[in-house]
Amino acid sequence: MSDYRYPYQDGVFVLNQLVGLEQICQQAGLDDFADGLAEAVLDEAAKLGSEQLAPLNVTGDRLGASIENNNVSETPGFSDAYQQFCDGGWPSLAGNPEFGGQGLPNVLAVAVNEVWQSANLAWALCPLLTQGAIEAIETHGNDQLKKHYLPKLISGEWTGTMNLTEPDAGTDLAALKSKAVPEDDYYRITGQKIFITWGDHQMTDNIVHLVLARLADAPAGVKGISLFVVPKYLLDENGNPTEQRNDAYAVSLEHKLGIHGSPTCVMSFGDNGGAIGYLVGKANQGLACMFTMMNDARQGVGLQGLAISERSYQHAVTYAKERIQGTLRDGSRISIIKHPDVRRMLLQMKSSIQAMRALVYVARAESDYVNNAVDDETKLKHQKRNDLLTPIVKGWVTELAQELTYLAVQIHGGMGFIEETGVAQYYRDARILTIYEGTTGIQALDLIGRKTLVDGGDAVTDLLSEISSDLKEIDHPELQSIVSATQAAVEQASIAKQWVLEVAAKDASAAGSASVSYMMLMGYLCGAWLLTKSAAIAQENLSKEGADSDFLNAKIISARFFTEQMLPRVSSLLVAMQSGGETVMAMSEEQF
Amino acid sequence: MSDYRYPYQDGVFVLNQLVGLEQICQQAGLDDFADGLAEAVLDEAAKLGSEQLAPLNVTGDRLGASIENNNVSETPGFSDAYQQFCDGGWPSLAGNPEFGGQGLPNVLAVAVNEVWQSANLAWALCPLLTQGAIEAIETHGNDQLKKHYLPKLISGEWTGTMNLTEPDAGTDLAALKSKAVPEDDYYRITGQKIFITWGDHQMTDNIVHLVLARLADAPAGVKGISLFVVPKYLLDENGNPTEQRNDAYAVSLEHKLGIHGSPTCVMSFGDNGGAIGYLVGKANQGLACMFTMMNDARQGVGLQGLAISERSYQHAVTYAKERIQGTLRDGSRISIIKHPDVRRMLLQMKSSIQAMRALVYVARAESDYVNNAVDDETKLKHQKRNDLLTPIVKGWVTELAQELTYLAVQIHGGMGFIEETGVAQYYRDARILTIYEGTTGIQALDLIGRKTLVDGGDAVTDLLSEISSDLKEIDHPELQSIVSATQAAVEQASIAKQWVLEVAAKDASAAGSASVSYMMLMGYLCGAWLLTKSAAIAQENLSKEGADSDFLNAKIISARFFTEQMLPRVSSLLVAMQSGGETVMAMSEEQF
Repeated sequence: MSDYRYPYQDGVFVLNQLVGLEQICQQAGLDDFADGLAEAVLDEAAKLGSEQLAPLNVTGDRLGASIENNNVSETPGFSDAYQQFCDGGWPSLAGNPEFGGQGLPNVLAVAVNEVWQSANLAWALCPLLTQGAIEAIETHGNDQLKKHYLPKLISGEWTGTMNLTEPDAGTDLAALKSKAVPEDDYYRITGQKIFITWGDHQMTDNIVHLVLARLADAPAGVKGISLFVVPKYLLDENGNPTEQRNDAYAVSLEHKLGIHGSPTCVMSFGDNGGAIGYLVGKANQGLACMFTMMNDARQGVGLQGLAISERSYQHAVTYAKERIQGTLRDGSRISIIKHPDVRRMLLQMKSSIQAMRALVYVARAESDYVNNAVDDETKLKHQKRNDLLTPIVKGWVTELAQELTYLAVQIHGGMGFIEETGVAQYYRDARILTIYEGTTGIQALDLIGRKTLVDGGDAVTDLLSEISSDLKEIDHPELQSIVSATQAAVEQASIAKQWVLEVAAKDASAAGSASVSYMMLMGYLCGAWLLTKSAAIAQENLSKEGADSDFLNAKIISARFFTEQMLPRVSSLLVAMQSGGETVMAMSEEQF
Repeated sequence: MSDYRYPYQDGVFVLNQLVGLEQICQQAGLDDFADGLAEAVLDEAAKLGSEQLAPLNVTGDRLGASIENNNVSETPGFSDAYQQFCDGGWPSLAGNPEFGGQGLPNVLAVAVNEVWQSANLAWALCPLLTQGAIEAIETHGNDQLKKHYLPKLISGEWTGTMNLTEPDAGTDLAALKSKAVPEDDYYRITGQKIFITWGDHQMTDNIVHLVLARLADAPAGVKGISLFVVPKYLLDENGNPTEQRNDAYAVSLEHKLGIHGSPTCVMSFGDNGGAIGYLVGKANQGLACMFTMMNDARQGVGLQGLAISERSYQHAVTYAKERIQGTLRDGSRISIIKHPDVRRMLLQMKSSIQAMRALVYVARAESDYVNNAVDDETKLKHQKRNDLLTPIVKGWVTELAQELTYLAVQIHGGMGFIEETGVAQYYRDARILTIYEGTTGIQALDLIGRKTLVDGGDAVTDLLSEISSDLKEIDHPELQSIVSATQAAVEQASIAKQWVLEVAAKDASAAGSASVSYMMLMGYLCGAWLLTKSAAIAQENLSKEGADSDFLNAKIISARFFTEQMLPRVSSLLVAMQSGGETVMAMSEEQF
């Protein structure tokens, strides 16, 4: 039952038909990739995922990681898989060619990353976190840091970690206590960090910790945080690792609900005099550096929501076809996929997953459009869209992933509750996704605050205009009801935006109370938009020679189902958010 | 963090103000209980729950049960707790006095049962299943079965099990293969049963298995199923257990996502010649007997949904008050309960739990009204209401429990994902509730079919009329918006019912596709109805001398929040169900 295949046909449809991979490749001077090589890359990734990583998923869940004398041993088999991953050149796919990367589009990398995340989410967290470290050093590090660290992080020879959280400083980084004291050309770092994903392991001969800490003279709060590179093993002057162990150790592992294959470490820095660290960017500018790491990671976690949903869907659909239960009047017994309610659950999964995939890939492509922009205006436009979509990708996709992995268990009936069946693991693994890299509440505040109120709603207005204009271009009478439903949702989203600008702007309680409803509303709208566009493309392609009508018709059915059964949630979310913050704030703490 | 207290004030409010416990007690000739003794009973139960059972909840999760040589050992400590439970007379609370029961109202027992289920759901499954066995024997058994089995089941000296499911016969009992062959005055039973809750343990000196099996000459399908009593140890002619072990054994235990403290057994009957069993009711009438067991158990599982939500809420609210995160402009640090989005989540829990409690108790009281009815008309009226509410209690409450236990984890942030925190256990334990005793899909089909279509919608119409008439009686301008929102939901429910009668009646696919949306819609409506009634009662009581205004105001705020933020889901569910079955059935199996 651990079979997994990347949904190649849907992935390629999104990349080629919806995202404009060809255009992105051409803009980046990668004409080869516009011409079919992208599909070949994806196909190779899919093989590695299915054959090597997917079977290790359950191993990671059952065996987990272990720690002895401050050394973490990862799940048996993970290291070999990691070597194959590096040998195939996968870590460097979208890396900067200046530092050994292959310079392929991020949106191609996101499709490839879907494979790793579906195949083995706990394992794939390791390269996901490394990517954050790369972004931070590349964007904010000085030349020497870049030269010493980027090539080996990009090649996968080393992995990276993000050390933000402390026992008293989770969402609230202002409360951070870790200290950094200057010494020669480096700093001595002391402090304890918790929830450090892949904080230690034996898969590579070095690990690069990115650590937030506070200088002695730093201002209080988030304006006094700095970011440091703290390697597990110190480097010599040429950037080669020495035998000298830095004073940075994993001291324990968490016992978690899911993602057992991913060692979640308590890290201790400086128990023996202070870990040596190197400042990234300017002193006290750590928050900006952190956001650089975090924003990509947030989209990465959204991708995980898609990936685990897809994996659980494949499990559920296989079971629904095989499980015989129920008898027709003629006495023949039927598989449960014939039952309307089971089909309803499967379609809820399938259509939502297609919506998620479209949104995750489209959002990631924005970073390619930013990178390839020929003028500032284009760059800014795509940067704003990227920024707007990030909390929706992280927040909405991961929340929906909870519902979909729940349905995957439900379709299995009693067998779903039995761990050996395997589907419960996806449900448990998925549970972290709405928590790490900023909870759903934090994404929603980001969307309503920085991404809506700050620019007076401009980015949202642009998005709604684009959706409306896309809908107007659709001229297929067969799709009329789908288009109308999505257009109605645009109008509701517009009311929602207006409410945010008028009410939430003046009332922080209203903003906070409504924020998650607002974010979910925007998510369903974006999903419906991209599925409706997909349906229109599918409808056009149906008349083309050699068209796969089964696939294209399914695409249209998915869009129809989504607008019929999922999109109506928009209206209830709108009513809920419009109720504001008065009732939410009315109860005293004692009354809870 | 394992502290648990029964929410005594809310429980008593529901019993006294909403359910009419006084009236029920008087009808049953229990005037003492109308006069405060009920509260005393509840208070005693709450003590046993908090002090003895609640601390064992985490023990059950970590240690689970074990099996050796076909003997299941329950979690250490469970047996002592069970003895105290029996010594206190708790199992016999609502039992038939003819067989040693105390004859108290079922609705009082349901409140007491909330304590056990909140305190230790895995443990409390044992008495819950025993209750099903009692119902089956009392309703359908002959005098000798009643005499031999009921007193010891009612006193708790023995426990009962329900043996329905087989590997190929879960929801679809027609596929049942277990066999019964007559021999003397008993039957020889052979077959394998799976998912048998508390199928074996060492807490009592006998276990009474209720087993569905098929006679050799039985018709095919569900009309050929019979129910048998199969004791673990055979009885002598006086009904006392002998040393003679029946041929009924637990052969393995399942490894589950949650409720680890509840041994889920594979049971093998007749490996050594056939287990001795006694027919309950008539041959081939087992399905009716099964429904007798099942219907009570379904309400019992709905109660579990309430109970685990309450437990997780208490965990979350404690954490939200203690966890410091965030800083005000004046530099003071605040607990997360001050954040609007955290309050939103807590209110979603609190208001939903109050709605669940009201519905679960009100539904259970219907069985008391049936028992106390002085004429057939009254009896029928209450029986119909009971039947209508059962699938809503099971389906809606347990589905909502998933969302609430999810929120409890979410409020804990990263700590929620760490098993030691304890809240993840509730999330895992709750996951079984929408599956066992009939999945959500089965409840929904029951509601749309047997409970709506069969009587032409009469029971639903009666309920909607009663809700409307309750709302009309409310004459508090302060509550106007709450009343209006609930009245609007009544109208939407009426449209839903009409759609069921007109569309679903002719189209099984439409009925199946819409059934879960219909059931959830009815659930939110029932919740809003009872919370709105509660708010009106609270508003009246506010002016009374000695009123606890904090409690009463909180009740009103909960109702307001529920109608503002949860009830709007009714409109999106109505739209979803009206989309019917066409899209759901449009996709071929290969297209999934």
